[in-house]
This record gives sequence, structure tokens and C-alpha cells, in this order.
Amino acid sequence: MELEAMVLKFPLSFKRLIPKTPPSPIRLGFRKLSASSSPTTLQSALLGHSTRPDFPILDQTVNASKLVYLDNAATSQKPTSVLNALQTYYQTYNSNVHRGIHWLSAKATDEYELARQKVANFVNSTGSGEIVFTRNATEAINLVAYSWGLDNLRAGDEIVLTVAEHHSVIVPWQIVAQKTGSVLKFVSLTEKQVPNLEELKEILNSRQKTKLVVIHHVSNVLGSVLPVEEIVGWAHDVGAKVLVDACQSVPHMEVDVKTLGVDFLVASSHKMCGPTGVGFLYGKSEVLGSMRPFLGGGEMIVDVFLEHSTYAEPPSRFEAGTPAIGEAIGLGAAVDYLSGIGMKSIHKYETELANYLYESLCSISKIEIYGPKPSETLFRAALCSFNVNNVHPTDIATFLDQQYGVAIRSGHHCAQPLHRYLGVSSSARASLYFYNTKEDVDTFIAALKETISFFTSFQ
Amino acid sequence: MELEAMVLKFPLSFKRLIPKTPPSPIRLGFRKLSASSSPTTLQSALLGHSTRPDFPILDQTVNASKLVYLDNAATSQKPTSVLNALQTYYQTYNSNVHRGIHWLSAKATDEYELARQKVANFVNSTGSGEIVFTRNATEAINLVAYSWGLDNLRAGDEIVLTVAEHHSVIVPWQIVAQKTGSVLKFVSLTEKQVPNLEELKEILNSRQKTKLVVIHHVSNVLGSVLPVEEIVGWAHDVGAKVLVDACQSVPHMEVDVKTLGVDFLVASSHKMCGPTGVGFLYGKSEVLGSMRPFLGGGEMIVDVFLEHSTYAEPPSRFEAGTPAIGEAIGLGAAVDYLSGIGMKSIHKYETELANYLYESLCSISKIEIYGPKPSETLFRAALCSFNVNNVHPTDIATFLDQQYGVAIRSGHHCAQPLHRYLGVSSSARASLYFYNTKEDVDTFIAALKETISFFTSFQ
Repeated sequence: MELEAMVLKFPLSFKRLIPKTPPSPIRLGFRKLSASSSPTTLQSALLGHSTRPDFPILDQTVNASKLVYLDNAATSQKPTSVLNALQTYYQTYNSNVHRGIHWLSAKATDEYELARQKVANFVNSTGSGEIVFTRNATEAINLVAYSWGLDNLRAGDEIVLTVAEHHSVIVPWQIVAQKTGSVLKFVSLTEKQVPNLEELKEILNSRQKTKLVVIHHVSNVLGSVLPVEEIVGWAHDVGAKVLVDACQSVPHMEVDVKTLGVDFLVASSHKMCGPTGVGFLYGKSEVLGSMRPFLGGGEMIVDVFLEHSTYAEPPSRFEAGTPAIGEAIGLGAAVDYLSGIGMKSIHKYETELANYLYESLCSISKIEIYGPKPSETLFRAALCSFNVNNVHPTDIATFLDQQYGVAIRSGHHCAQPLHRYLGVSSSARASLYFYNTKEDVDTFIAALKETISFFTSFQ
Repeated sequence: MELEAMVLKFPLSFKRLIPKTPPSPIRLGFRKLSASSSPTTLQSALLGHSTRPDFPILDQTVNASKLVYLDNAATSQKPTSVLNALQTYYQTYNSNVHRGIHWLSAKATDEYELARQKVANFVNSTGSGEIVFTRNATEAINLVAYSWGLDNLRAGDEIVLTVAEHHSVIVPWQIVAQKTGSVLKFVSLTEKQVPNLEELKEILNSRQKTKLVVIHHVSNVLGSVLPVEEIVGWAHDVGAKVLVDACQSVPHMEVDVKTLGVDFLVASSHKMCGPTGVGFLYGKSEVLGSMRPFLGGGEMIVDVFLEHSTYAEPPSRFEAGTPAIGEAIGLGAAVDYLSGIGMKSIHKYETELANYLYESLCSISKIEIYGPKPSETLFRAALCSFNVNNVHPTDIATFLDQQYGVAIRSGHHCAQPLHRYLGVSSSARASLYFYNTKEDVDTFIAALKETISFFTSFQ
């Protein structure tokens, strides 16, 4: 592959060629870029501008350039209201929850449970009993794998995934498959680089062995969106349950678990304006209620005897030990913030940004952008993973950071099987959120062009 | 039991007898209590006074009284420096760790790994590779149970615990015992209400079936301390490993994993001045290195293929998904804060407070304090669980909160088997930290006396 050749061609990092910090005043001859140097021509960039003041972290200089943060698929920034909610918790009513009757504990319990209700409302769950707080989406998937998977999967049963899944979706089911003898079946991509739905349907219907479908809602690499509601229908028709990784959808669009009909859905706080250290599992109440506990400890029990214990109803059954109290309350504040803007507005704005990003990248020669064209899909998420002929993505990301303060990601984005399927070992990825602007895209594109010029000048 | 009688005698909560909020201006005839009404006579109360300004949360009014927070065994308050570290992370370099090369990500990664090193130094671990960040101590125990336990325990193997263990120590091993056929053996208490070490030694030596000893370091109910180093010696002599629940020791005294010789040790951030949502597992490097992964996902892998994966070395092997980045950094700041005071100073001060609390409680008639007398043990932790004849502990805790702003806990403190062993269903518990003062104890004792008078006046 071309990328392999690039790696061989640049065995030494270019870091040795240019000063790291502080950057040379001459900045290697590259002009400073600014939004004003490439004015946006589109009209509805209001949301990025109006929300920007809520994120003071974005107003900083990195490597002598104004920060342009385009790594939102890895983690989002947090608005001031979320940080204030965290501080208010720790400064005025920090206490352990559920087990105390004094004022601080009662207040902390009320706010923690209110946060759960907010999350339930946000995804239109029937009630807060269907929302389990976890450390992150990964733990939520593992909870289902250990609790539901080990009890419900037998040798020969099949778990259907796509080759585009995140490691957190694949690895827990590899572990379960090893323990139970169940089998993973992977759906490939079409020529348009989206999961092949016909193949998925064929696996479900022809084999009749599927017990679980585990899929992303929006791909963190391809930017594509799956028709979850339709897939759930197919899966339920053959008696399979569906777990959806909604890490890249819940922060960016309206997600309604009732409409989708999913059995399980997971998301992470830190990708949706909330603190790190907390995420959630939505599970249909009848499914959660049928599941044995995962982690044992305080909070999840009714009675503990020396030899055995009885367990609480969900969601407590799945929350052993002192939870991430402040972080869950922060997530509740993030939900308030997002709801205040409106998920429809966020989605509309981001779709516009997504198309602008895609079209702008298309103006770069010898670039390959992964995933469907905007015209070939319902919509693309506001992220693009790409490679440029003869330039390693890590070199691109490093140079963009060090020379222009533009933060993008390079690597396999926790999707090695997908990259292998695409025939590359890694890619560069720019991912946006509603506080990004078209000027951010312009700055990125201009910097990317200069970065490519720099590296290709050695060839 | 007397408590059962009390429950029968007070079937209606006294909440119906007194106004809840706002409290009556007459305050039911009880005078407002203040420290000045009961001056301390002891000399070394400096630490509580000198550190108090670091905890602004303590300087507030609850239910029209100055807050006296004596629920530290449930969770501690956080000093300003910890909250500042959290805010600095979120406001200036929030980013995902390990996977990015841009400035924010590199900075977040450096600070996250620095926090791990701080924790390693704090417990005198050989290196940060022996420290795994978890959500809390409970998850850390479950990690050992699922990863080490399921692979190393066979039918008939014995796990030795004491009847004084926390639910988080008991329940995970009940689950493992059910899955493996291994057997839990519980050590009872002596007449002094401390775990019977002769019995523990006898179980180890006579049966030669023990594969694991799981014990607390300091009891969250009895206030007693176990000679861990000695027990580890006995356990290792028969080839058993030792896991120590150090939730009530690491925040309060010097804990040196090398001196103790333990194989595993767990603690929670939120009980040691750090944020909620993070805790840690210490594991001897050779033991951690031999263990299979627990949770699957990003971060813990080397290579993911469709059918199988290869895994990272510890500690990454056990940290799937985006970790509690800000919270771990906050824990690092808490370790800095505690180290700045000095754990020896904290322990010395708290031991003095512990004795003062114990002696003060002894002045109350018809009180039963659980655990050893200070003179019968190396030291008592600064907590007392107790019951007062004919007054329900929940009534005591509620009244102390509503009438005097004194926050203590009532219930089983996640130790139902211990309470059952002691012949009661619950107890009241006052637990102190270094920012508490003898004046706090005086206020509590005076309020407790009036509380008891109130309830016994109905009898």
C-alpha cells in the first residue's frame, strides 16, 4: 500500500527537521493562517459563533497559533455551565448518595437521580430505571456482554457486527465468544464504503442463528449513519436483540430509543459536553430486569448474607459501589445545555458543516476520504477520515498541531479492522462539533494544503 | 434485640412530630449548640483548624445550623487545590489521552500518567505499571475477581474473609464462588470485637485450601486495624494471595504496599480528598502481568483482528475505553495535598481525635460503641459506630441533621453480615477526617445528648 511506502520513505520523524518548541519565528516560511484569510461564504454559521463563548478553552493559543480543535470524535469540550455544575456539587453538597439521610446526602442523591432522569428524557426512554450510569460507553457494552451475553449465548449462537465497529464494540464480544463458543459474524462494506445492509439481512434471515446484533449508529471513521430502526426490525423478526453504539450520534442528533426500538444503547458523557468518568447504558426495562448483576458491591444489593446476596432492581443492580456522582450530575448539566440549543438545530448545523468539510477536502489533490459521499447517504456526520498520497497521517497531524495549532487525530481511531479492510493502517481524521465554524474548516484546509506542500517538497 | 423493640416502639417516624423545613424558630426548645459552649481542653487540634480554610464547603449553614460534617467514612470533602486541578484540566487542556499527538492530547496524557505515578509513589509501589485506575474501589475488587479469580480458583478452593468486610469485598467473591465452585470462609470476631486472628491462622494452616485472603485494612464500622503485614506472611506461607481493602486506611495513614507485601490493594479517590468516579487497584507487577483482561475495548489492546485481539501490558490492559481523565488528575492533586500535610501528621492527629471521640461517646449512658477500646488495639480509626438503648439510629441521624446540622450516617454501612453478627440491623456512625476538630466532636456530643433526651422523653 502507498502508506507503507510512506512510512519507509520517512523513517525519521520530521520533528528532527523542524524545531519543536518554541516554533521558529520564521515558522519555516509558512504564513500564519486566520479565518479572515479565507472568509466563509455560507450563511448559517451562527451556531458555532453563538456557542463559542461557552467554551473558553477554545480561546487559547497553542504552539503560537490560535487553537482550532477538530478532535471532537475523540472527546468534546465542556461548556461553562457543565463546569459550574461540577464545582457547585463539590463546593456545596458533595456527599455520598443513597445511603445517607443528612442534608448533603439527600441533596446529592436528588441531583444524581435527577441527572439520570435528564438522560432518560434526552433519549426518550420510558423512565430513569432504564438508564445505568457506567464509567464510559465501553464499560456499558462490557456490562451487557458479561451480564446478558454470558447468560444468553451458547455455542454456535451468532453475534452480528460490521467491520466498521469500534474496538469497544468488537473486543467485549470476542471475549464473550471465547467463553461461550458463540461466533462473531462481520458484515462488510459496499463499494460506497458503508455497511452492506443486504448482507446483514441475508446473515440474519438465511442462518437464523443470530442472537445479537451489535452496531454503531454513526461511524467514527466513515461518518456514515446506519438505519437503526430498520435493522432492529430485521433483528427482532429473527428473535435477535440489538445493541447500538451511539457514541457518535447521541451528542449530535436526536436519538429516540423508543422509535429506534433498540434493546440496548450506549453513549459516553465526555463526547457530549459532559465530564469524563461517566457514560450510560440504556436498556429496555424488561431486558435489564431479566439480567443478573455484573459488578458486586454496595448499592446493588438488597440483603447480603455470608454465603449469598439478594439484588436490587435495575438500575441500582448494575451500579456497584459509590458511583461517579459529580460526573453524572455534570452529564445532566450537559444534557440541559444540549437540550437548550436543541438537538435538531445542532444536527442541522453540523450536517451543513459536514458537507462543507467534505467539499473543502475534495479540493485537495490526491486525497482519499473514507466513507460515503454526502450525496450517497442520508447525511454524513461532521467528520472526515482521509489519507493523502505519500504523506503519513501522523506527519499531517503533528505538523498541523505544531505549525498551525490545528488539532486533528491520526491513527486507527480504535477501528483497526476497518482500516485493514480499507487497505490502510491509519488515517487522519478531522471531527467537528456544533461550536466549530466554517472558519475553523477554512483554517484547517489552508493549513492542510501547506502541510502537504511541505512534505511533498521532499519527494 | 433492643433495636427491634425500638422499631416497634417508633413505627412512625418522628418527622411527623416535628416540622421538617424550615425548622421552627423555637427549635423545639433546644438551644443552639456551638463549640464555645464546650471548649476543648486538648492541645493538638491544630491540623483541623489549619486545614479548614481549604474546604469552603464546611463553612455553610445546614438546617439553620453550622454544618458539622462527620460522614467522612462515606466520602470526604475536597480541598480547593483538587477542584482547581479539575477546573484547570477542563478549562485548558481537556482532551482524550494516549491516542492523540496534538498539544492538548499530549498534555492530558502527561498529566494523567503523572497522576498514576503520584498514586504509585503515595503507596510506595515499585512503579506506575502497578496502578490501574478504576471507577472506585468496588470496581477494582471486581477486576481482581473476574480477571484473577475466575482463572485461578477451582472447585473446593477457599477464599478467606472476615465477617467485618464491606459488601464490596464480599459480593464479588460470592459471584466468583458461584461460578467456580470455590468456597468462602469467614473469620469471626473476638470478644473485643476485632477479627479473630488465631482463627484466621488456623483456617489457613489446618485446611491448606486457601488461595486468597480478602480483608479490610481498617474496618469502616469497628474502627479497628488489622496487622496486614503479619497476615500476608501467614497467607504466603500457604501459597495464598492477599487482597486488601484499604479504603479506610490509605486516606488516613501511611500505607506502604512493599512493607505490607500485599498482592492487591484497592482504594477510592472520593474518600481521600479526590473526585468521585475514580479509584485504583495496586497489583504486584508479576501478578497483574499474569492476568487476562477484564473489560474489552480501546486502550487495552495492541492489535484487534476480527476474530481475536492481542492485549497491552498492565496497567493499560485493564483500562478499556476513555478513562476518567479529569478525575484521575484530580486524584493526583489530592495525593499532592495529603502528602503536603504528611500522612504521619494526619494519622497522629486523627488518632488523637479518635480517642477523644471514643471517650466523649463513652460519657453517654446506655450507649454501645462497636469495635475495640482504644486501649485494646494499636489504634482506632477516627470513627465510631454505635447504638443507644431504645433510640433508633436513623432517628438519631435524622434529628442531628435537622435540628443541629450534624451529618452522621445511620444504617448498615454496607456491612450487613457484621451488623447481623453484632446482633443489630443498623447503627449510627460518626466518622472524622483531619479537617475535623475537637470542637466538632463537642458539638456532636452535645447535640447527641439532646437528641437522646428528646427521644427518651417519649418513653
